Amino acid sequence: MTANYSTFSNGVHMSAVSVEEGRARDGRDPGRQTVAILGSGDYSRSLAGRLVQAGFTVVVGSRDPDRNARFFTQGADVTTRRAALSGAGLVFVAIHRENYPDLQADRDALAGKILIDVSNNTEIPEGESNAEYLASLFPDSTVVKGFNVVSAWSLSSGLFGGSKEVFISSDDGNARKTVMQLAQDLGFVPVDYGSLRAAREIEAIPLRLLPSWHLALKMFLVVFVTFFLYCLYRIVIFRAITGINQASHIPVSVMNMTFAGTAITLLCLVYIPGIFAAFAQLYNGTKYKRFPNWLDKWMLARKQLGLLSLLASIVHAFLSFMIWSPSYYSRLFEQTVTPSGEVKYGKLRWSGETFLLFGALSLFLMAVLGVSSIPSVSNAMNWREFNFVQSKLGWVVLIFAIVHNAVYGAEVFTLPRLFSSYTIAVFQLTLVLPAILVLMKVVTLLPCVGPRVDRIRRGWERSKPATHAVTTADEPQEETSLMSA
Amino acid sequence: MTANYSTFSNGVHMSAVSVEEGRARDGRDPGRQTVAILGSGDYSRSLAGRLVQAGFTVVVGSRDPDRNARFFTQGADVTTRRAALSGAGLVFVAIHRENYPDLQADRDALAGKILIDVSNNTEIPEGESNAEYLASLFPDSTVVKGFNVVSAWSLSSGLFGGSKEVFISSDDGNARKTVMQLAQDLGFVPVDYGSLRAAREIEAIPLRLLPSWHLALKMFLVVFVTFFLYCLYRIVIFRAITGINQASHIPVSVMNMTFAGTAITLLCLVYIPGIFAAFAQLYNGTKYKRFPNWLDKWMLARKQLGLLSLLASIVHAFLSFMIWSPSYYSRLFEQTVTPSGEVKYGKLRWSGETFLLFGALSLFLMAVLGVSSIPSVSNAMNWREFNFVQSKLGWVVLIFAIVHNAVYGAEVFTLPRLFSSYTIAVFQLTLVLPAILVLMKVVTLLPCVGPRVDRIRRGWERSKPATHAVTTADEPQEETSLMSA
Amino acid sequence: MTANYSTFSNGVHMSAVSVEEGRARDGRDPGRQTVAILGSGDYSRSLAGRLVQAGFTVVVGSRDPDRNARFFTQGADVTTRRAALSGAGLVFVAIHRENYPDLQADRDALAGKILIDVSNNTEIPEGESNAEYLASLFPDSTVVKGFNVVSAWSLSSGLFGGSKEVFISSDDGNARKTVMQLAQDLGFVPVDYGSLRAAREIEAIPLRLLPSWHLALKMFLVVFVTFFLYCLYRIVIFRAITGINQASHIPVSVMNMTFAGTAITLLCLVYIPGIFAAFAQLYNGTKYKRFPNWLDKWMLARKQLGLLSLLASIVHAFLSFMIWSPSYYSRLFEQTVTPSGEVKYGKLRWSGETFLLFGALSLFLMAVLGVSSIPSVSNAMNWREFNFVQSKLGWVVLIFAIVHNAVYGAEVFTLPRLFSSYTIAVFQLTLVLPAILVLMKVVTLLPCVGPRVDRIRRGWERSKPATHAVTTADEPQEETSLMSA
Repeated sequence: MTANYSTFSNGVHMSAVSVEEGRARDGRDPGRQTVAILGSGDYSRSLAGRLVQAGFTVVVGSRDPDRNARFFTQGADVTTRRAALSGAGLVFVAIHRENYPDLQADRDALAGKILIDVSNNTEIPEGESNAEYLASLFPDSTVVKGFNVVSAWSLSSGLFGGSKEVFISSDDGNARKTVMQLAQDLGFVPVDYGSLRAAREIEAIPLRLLPSWHLALKMFLVVFVTFFLYCLYRIVIFRAITGINQASHIPVSVMNMTFAGTAITLLCLVYIPGIFAAFAQLYNGTKYKRFPNWLDKWMLARKQLGLLSLLASIVHAFLSFMIWSPSYYSRLFEQTVTPSGEVKYGKLRWSGETFLLFGALSLFLMAVLGVSSIPSVSNAMNWREFNFVQSKLGWVVLIFAIVHNAVYGAEVFTLPRLFSSYTIAVFQLTLVLPAILVLMKVVTLLPCVGPRVDRIRRGWERSKPATHAVTTADEPQEETSLMSA
Repeated sequence: MTANYSTFSNGVHMSAVSVEEGRARDGRDPGRQTVAILGSGDYSRSLAGRLVQAGFTVVVGSRDPDRNARFFTQGADVTTRRAALSGAGLVFVAIHRENYPDLQADRDALAGKILIDVSNNTEIPEGESNAEYLASLFPDSTVVKGFNVVSAWSLSSGLFGGSKEVFISSDDGNARKTVMQLAQDLGFVPVDYGSLRAAREIEAIPLRLLPSWHLALKMFLVVFVTFFLYCLYRIVIFRAITGINQASHIPVSVMNMTFAGTAITLLCLVYIPGIFAAFAQLYNGTKYKRFPNWLDKWMLARKQLGLLSLLASIVHAFLSFMIWSPSYYSRLFEQTVTPSGEVKYGKLRWSGETFLLFGALSLFLMAVLGVSSIPSVSNAMNWREFNFVQSKLGWVVLIFAIVHNAVYGAEVFTLPRLFSSYTIAVFQLTLVLPAILVLMKVVTLLPCVGPRVDRIRRGWERSKPATHAVTTADEPQEETSLMSA
Repeated sequence: MTANYSTFSNGVHMSAVSVEEGRARDGRDPGRQTVAILGSGDYSRSLAGRLVQAGFTVVVGSRDPDRNARFFTQGADVTTRRAALSGAGLVFVAIHRENYPDLQADRDALAGKILIDVSNNTEIPEGESNAEYLASLFPDSTVVKGFNVVSAWSLSSGLFGGSKEVFISSDDGNARKTVMQLAQDLGFVPVDYGSLRAAREIEAIPLRLLPSWHLALKMFLVVFVTFFLYCLYRIVIFRAITGINQASHIPVSVMNMTFAGTAITLLCLVYIPGIFAAFAQLYNGTKYKRFPNWLDKWMLARKQLGLLSLLASIVHAFLSFMIWSPSYYSRLFEQTVTPSGEVKYGKLRWSGETFLLFGALSLFLMAVLGVSSIPSVSNAMNWREFNFVQSKLGWVVLIFAIVHNAVYGAEVFTLPRLFSSYTIAVFQLTLVLPAILVLMKVVTLLPCVGPRVDRIRRGWERSKPATHAVTTADEPQEETSLMSA
């Protein structure tokens, strides 16, 4: 077995050890090392292409070489399985789990080789992973799980940018290391997941569907539906029943109020957990005590909440433009009464213009936040810059949004008709949460509180005076990150 | 020659092999290896900077060292060509092709070294590439083509994110491998292009101008011009001639209809090829048979078609806002007739609000698709997530867009005046292609068809029952990817 | 000391040299090498996690192991400092500068090891850097500065995309090289900053706050305030005083004009430096003469200026939509006078529609430019593509913006009332700079000038006929890059 490694290792490590050594170890052109791939599907093809590009000699073992050869890149030699296995110490197993047993025929040829299981399942597997199953079938081979998170598509396209991570696990340290080096040679960032049992975890990764969005989307739905039903009752159902006012239409009138309320509420939900965290830390007197689980989850959902708030704001802006006329917002326009007693609307009043300005600025700064949370943009900033954009700017957005909403209702804030239908106006309801948030924020800024929080976040602990925990200047603090990656 | 390699190889590989070995092999500080650059242009300067950053000792061979030295980074030693060549086994040739002959003077000093040709041309070269020309001039040296796709700018700025690939070719396997390792040490992803003849291909790469956009842009132009001429005839020329109605203005009225029609049509053109592919696979009974060439090309243009559709939609939305008033869309507003027989327009009617809502949602979801197709965003998603966003969401966008259009015309769909000018209304014309597409899609979803397509896409073939081709969970299927990279 | 290196080096280089060698050198599982971390803060935890993922054995030296162990990832062994130091040749010092002296207790255990100083300061340090201070405390150890630009957050999240660079400096070439290799193994791009003195520079990097934006933001403010005051005087103050016209409201009317003027002016400021550069090069007769400092700075601020111009345009578009009605823009609407002498506004006039169309197209193309300047997007383009989008398209945007503005004022360009208040209209003022710019641009395109500039930019120099400076096809020219990274 060791023999096998040595034969192989200078293969994969060719890019690392000097050329002479390579030649010394075997006769083949040291510039090109041999890797075998079993299976001739799309994945096999893309993988072969990538390996050839990276300077490896690729031998594909197919049940029907003549038929499949034409689908493979030049430089990849498509042959029978036996022939493919003969030369290589490293073997990619790119076939379906249900077909693993068919490999028994080549059991002896596989013995002592490193088998890389790249397979995936269509649903989260229970119990044994594909890789463990493969290992149980071929005890004389060393099975390594890896590359399953890489799609045939990303292999064939040279595009990189986001996650280049490839997760590797195996019970054999050397084999794991060898495959990690191979991943590196192919331009990926290998991540060591330890023993083969971790393959269960690794095989589950590609099946996740936007996990980080689940909580945020749930919160969005709850808030959205709540506002929708509230508006529906107040400006449609109640009016329709009483006939005091003409009932509004749902598609734009109701939707618009709903999105507006949702946008501001979600924005508050981005900042509340940070403040809770500060209170928790004050209470614990340290930052090294875990937060309650729900708070941890909430904090991790802040970026998504921020983005959903941005999207809600955009829709709100759209719908508003569509009904932006005196017919809908008469209060905000200058009115003149003609001799014939007819009302004519002119330009906007000061209140109307102010209301609009803050709405526009708030949305526009929020869009900047959104852009800055695009991975390649946020990664180009150091922490202070990111902190500044996400936290400081985020609060400005919130303040502007509040002003936008407050000015809208300012003049009529106490009109009795607002309290018709036994409810308060939507814009008033929308202001409740921001008011609470701002109040809490102010508390955390009080001279008797703020500095203490900062000290704690730099590692200070009530229990003992000095701490040795280092806090780098570019380390995120709990409170920040409206849309941090 | 081998001697040269060994002298050099432990240089480049210093980052790989342990420090002792390095020291063992030569007396110099093993942490810094020597690379020579001939030429003192911008590229030479940026390259020198990067090499120094990566920990190499750089010697620049210039015809006028004293004059040029001041332009180079500290750590790069600017001297005469001869002096530069003496120490290094690897030589970057950063001078114009037309000046290659001047190097003849140092022919002996270049013998046995690896020459890296980084040059580019201003137009696609015919016949011999620069690298091959260089090789013909210096038969005693080993010429490697590479780094030409890297700009001086990307070398000097530390920015990475998109394609980090560097294409390497040479007739000497060792030299190629050595330079690939160098590329890796500089933070690039080397791609092996094989023999030096491939230099022709490599030198052509930087001259391409958005090749993936050509087909999509052509389709865009055809669709756009068609709709434009149609609208021009129907609402300008015909009206101007007959004088039945007042002719519309071109800049917004005509343009707006044109962009609207173009947006929906392009969106259909994104999904049609996928359905054709499904039919082709059903017909072939396998997915391992190549599609006709035009279909392949079309499928590769889907992302671009999707983005162009998004851009058309945005312009359409803009122009619509600008003319969004009863003067243009009287039908969608509530009308009251004053005693004086004058018509007054109030709020929107239900139809009007519905029409707007679906337009807004469709555009807004489409924008989400656009964002998700930014490389660093889409690379941060696994295939299922990407598939979900691009395919499922894409169809929702299309349905909403169709509703948006249908509601607009619903009430007047059969009015005779629509069929004036011997043509049908633009919104009717716009609905034709979507209708066909949806119909075809429904067919592929029929219980007797859908499952078969899925089986085929998982590798099943009519010819033989079982298949061994693996399909990873995160592998793109033909049908999906509205804006997939 | 050498002994220490050898013990260690095969550790870090394990991923590179073949497995046998590793096992030969020491008894431990060669797949996992030992690295020590002193300190148990957030940074220490994230670093430990990453190291374990990359396949290293991590020993954390904590003052209170039992209490802190639970915060660390599995695989990291949390113990006392002494115990941690015993096994490892490489030691991360992740504690605050003020606590460095406490390490004196383990002076002997630290001797001969490589200490990596990852600390940061809250403000730019004066004089001695933390790393130099550490080195002065432990003369028997080798101090390397590095990893301080990496945040605990980016370490724990696997996200990459923007800058993956890690800056390394040390007075010992081997230690520097060893740590650079370590950085590479962790998936970063190491950058060699030379001697330890450079640590001052390195420690200053994370403290920068968007340095590339300073100049652009200053220019933005100056332009914005100028236009604001000008509008304020002309359409508010002067009118209020004289009472000739009704004074406009500030929030939208004034702001809108201000943003419009700012947007176009900033766009001009993007292109002016390129033209100055061309003139400078013509004057110097070479491109190898440095530009005056202010011009260099200005050219580096072009991307930011372009983005700020885009943002100003977007706000302008928003505000315009909000007041887009005959009440504000009567001139652009068709007017009919009713028998009762009342003015009714109908559809837009040709001028109005043209004005809007160019505004929309200009904004929309500008947005495309903005998107193409997202790192991962622009890096996916080769230079010609980038050049085409940024330069050609940029000029189209500018022309469209000028037409948009010119058409708006065309009919009234010479009306006397425009020159009331002893000033010219805002739209006229806005046209001044573009006029100058276009004029200068035309000059650089004259047959007697243009070709000469091109020659110079390809390396030609007046002093001597031929040059050997290579210009790669994908090398940026000064003039281009509206929003180039």
